[in-house]
Amino acid sequence: MVEKMNLTMLTDFYEITMANGYFESGMAEDIAYFDMFFRQIPDNGGYAVMAGLEQVINYLENLNFTDEDIEFLKEKHMFSNAFLEYLKSFEFVCDVWAIPEGTPIFPGEPMVTVRGPVIQAQFVETMILLLINHQSLIATKASRIVRAAGGRPVMEFGTRRAHGGSAAIYGARAAYIGGCAGTACAIADRDYGVSALGTMAHSWVQMYPSEYEAFRKYAEIYPENCTLLVDTYNVLKSGVPAAIRVFDELQPKNKGIRIDSGDVAYLTKQARKMLDKAGHQDCKIVVSNSLDEYIIQDVIVEGACIDSFGVGERLITARSEPVFGGVYKLSALEKDGVMIPKMKISENVEKITNPGFKTVYRLFDKDTHKAVADVITLDGEAIPEGDDYEIFDPRAVWKRKKVNNFYVRNLRVQVFDKGTCIYQSPSIDEIRDYCRQQISTLWEETLRLENPQVYYVDLSKELWEMKNRLIEEYNQL
Amino acid sequence: MVEKMNLTMLTDFYEITMANGYFESGMAEDIAYFDMFFRQIPDNGGYAVMAGLEQVINYLENLNFTDEDIEFLKEKHMFSNAFLEYLKSFEFVCDVWAIPEGTPIFPGEPMVTVRGPVIQAQFVETMILLLINHQSLIATKASRIVRAAGGRPVMEFGTRRAHGGSAAIYGARAAYIGGCAGTACAIADRDYGVSALGTMAHSWVQMYPSEYEAFRKYAEIYPENCTLLVDTYNVLKSGVPAAIRVFDELQPKNKGIRIDSGDVAYLTKQARKMLDKAGHQDCKIVVSNSLDEYIIQDVIVEGACIDSFGVGERLITARSEPVFGGVYKLSALEKDGVMIPKMKISENVEKITNPGFKTVYRLFDKDTHKAVADVITLDGEAIPEGDDYEIFDPRAVWKRKKVNNFYVRNLRVQVFDKGTCIYQSPSIDEIRDYCRQQISTLWEETLRLENPQVYYVDLSKELWEMKNRLIEEYNQL
Repeated sequence: MVEKMNLTMLTDFYEITMANGYFESGMAEDIAYFDMFFRQIPDNGGYAVMAGLEQVINYLENLNFTDEDIEFLKEKHMFSNAFLEYLKSFEFVCDVWAIPEGTPIFPGEPMVTVRGPVIQAQFVETMILLLINHQSLIATKASRIVRAAGGRPVMEFGTRRAHGGSAAIYGARAAYIGGCAGTACAIADRDYGVSALGTMAHSWVQMYPSEYEAFRKYAEIYPENCTLLVDTYNVLKSGVPAAIRVFDELQPKNKGIRIDSGDVAYLTKQARKMLDKAGHQDCKIVVSNSLDEYIIQDVIVEGACIDSFGVGERLITARSEPVFGGVYKLSALEKDGVMIPKMKISENVEKITNPGFKTVYRLFDKDTHKAVADVITLDGEAIPEGDDYEIFDPRAVWKRKKVNNFYVRNLRVQVFDKGTCIYQSPSIDEIRDYCRQQISTLWEETLRLENPQVYYVDLSKELWEMKNRLIEEYNQL
Repeated sequence: MVEKMNLTMLTDFYEITMANGYFESGMAEDIAYFDMFFRQIPDNGGYAVMAGLEQVINYLENLNFTDEDIEFLKEKHMFSNAFLEYLKSFEFVCDVWAIPEGTPIFPGEPMVTVRGPVIQAQFVETMILLLINHQSLIATKASRIVRAAGGRPVMEFGTRRAHGGSAAIYGARAAYIGGCAGTACAIADRDYGVSALGTMAHSWVQMYPSEYEAFRKYAEIYPENCTLLVDTYNVLKSGVPAAIRVFDELQPKNKGIRIDSGDVAYLTKQARKMLDKAGHQDCKIVVSNSLDEYIIQDVIVEGACIDSFGVGERLITARSEPVFGGVYKLSALEKDGVMIPKMKISENVEKITNPGFKTVYRLFDKDTHKAVADVITLDGEAIPEGDDYEIFDPRAVWKRKKVNNFYVRNLRVQVFDKGTCIYQSPSIDEIRDYCRQQISTLWEETLRLENPQVYYVDLSKELWEMKNRLIEEYNQL
């Protein structure tokens, strides 16, 4: 939906101010490189999940300034007529590289690189950040929750608490990429193939004289798929007994009960006993009460009898850490065909960026196929497969390690070539499968929810030396 | 943008399952009442701010099922043909009452009430919650931040960290309602009249050989409005001196510097001294580094020299509490013209709902014009203005208080009459002014950021008795 629209003006106003500035100062066509990367994994987790690229592609393909846009800008009395004329014939001509959706990603890695006339490469900053920050945030959170559920399906149930319509729809998409089994959000099913389901609210039960009558009517209408919400009045005294009576009388298929309040560990254990005793061992128990990865882990440890989870507000808002802090920084210029690496110096060492046009390789062990380390390199550098490749922690260079018996994979693909999209996004199910498979290449220590082992992200020797040379040059200023 | 589209299928799937269920069981036309209300103020604040109603109106006016929607539902093989036929000719016919945008609201108050055929009044649940939860969340957070800033303008700068496009756009709108002076988001200006501005990113500075050259070029192009970002390299050693040099040479109007990193209390004090010494007392200092109400309050206490704030991710995501927990509950049915109040019983006393068709009055002191208390009443009840009205805390009925010398205002307006919108949304500036004025009627104790005084929200005696009667009836079952 949103993606079918021209969202060109969904941008920080300063992108336009700068665009006009570059145009006016004759620099519009200077070639610049920008990287998107992030600095910290939300919730102090061990990995994040890349998502949102399909929406970025769609945005870039639809980028154009309408008459309405131009009129709006004209009324600001800040921009030159020549610039506004230029916008009328604006056509995106940049090259774009990116890490595909569903890939586990780590701080500092260039998730997206845009190369092209600075007036364009700068302009697209806001939407690239907006789209990828949002979906990577939710995919990462979903991945944590799905892992905590230990193989039990997790449904995304947060539409009503999402931050607006796009958050609901693309949040459902991202949650699916991160491993959710489906969503409550109908439009995410229609438009993105994220399977939606849902049965009843408490109001359905309240509309009838009794729970039994409400359940019976539902089972008559939906004999193929019958999950009954049993906590409108009292789960164990009235809800579960009424559900059992209806199951006995009508024998619907795919029976389930859902509990949305109370102590779910205790209630599910008791409900399980009651259902089993009545011969309904095949009735699933679904739980959906303000859940997140921590509560899910806890109730499973407590021995709760839960077959699947519905997770709402704490997933769709990533409540524990609702910000994915991706940034978009200038990394190089081209002057007369020569590349000039650029970096942002900062008194905060963590904030110093990596200069130059880069890519990122992942090294896998040949025997276990586990990911050993990532290496950020300058473009064109190769990492020789095989043995004795030395990696070191760029924040603590005395920490060195030799990697043996490995093969490498370049994590990035080219997405746009001079403004033309040359990448076909996989289907949502392919992305989800790829994500699951890629996460399985990470060691358990990295996947741990709390205090995980920090995954190695190295800089190549060439990049490291370039970075140090630039810092020294800056210090001599 | 989003609101121009048909978002009928942006709904929880269970709304459709229930709609088909009511249709199939012959209950589709039974008249039901649903209330939206919330239970807890985010961040343990003293008040929340109602927002999002204009988008709800737009949604309800555009509600219709397209052929594509019907086809999608048909392929689920769950819904009857008669129901799908009914959807084709669906026309919204409900009555809707609501508290206008910008009003301070409190837990338990019916923010929205929908009355109509249950098949419709139930269906609109998801979007009413989605739209009002989101915007009320951001308006409430913005109100806190703006209060902390103590009269200094606060700009909303969070587009790139918003949860998708709607979150950016409607978040900017809601932040403005809550008191922000404007936004960085250009489209929110074009489509909602929230004034947008912005000047430069660090990359602008990096594109030039030196900060001085970058600033000078900017001042040449924008001599009318010249805020320079001074922290790309070193604020006090290079940024501020370069800015002063350019101010001296070109004398732009509306001079400003922006600091986006580091210890803003220290840096702004030093920068202020340098600017003043150079004769630029009129240069404003803008700060924009991961701010929220707590940091703003702290740096002001520290004596930071700040003229305005740019607040990003912590406002647009309401980071400290990113969920506004509005719910939508059945409160009454009509059977043969007789109203039957309904409530949700819960073992958790806080979760027991208020039955019946209600409204809410605010009592103001005649002398101070301060808000004294709110009273939720049944529809048609009047509160006699004047003296000796006894209010009591419904959670602690022994706490009683007589109110004297007051006048009353019904907080709600009717928005739809049998499906026709009869309410004209005020302009965004009117809503913002109304919000500021209404907040000024609250006592300082209620406005306090931490541990505020709980504002009185009473139930009328009639409503209280109805509620207790229903609880007793339930206990006798």
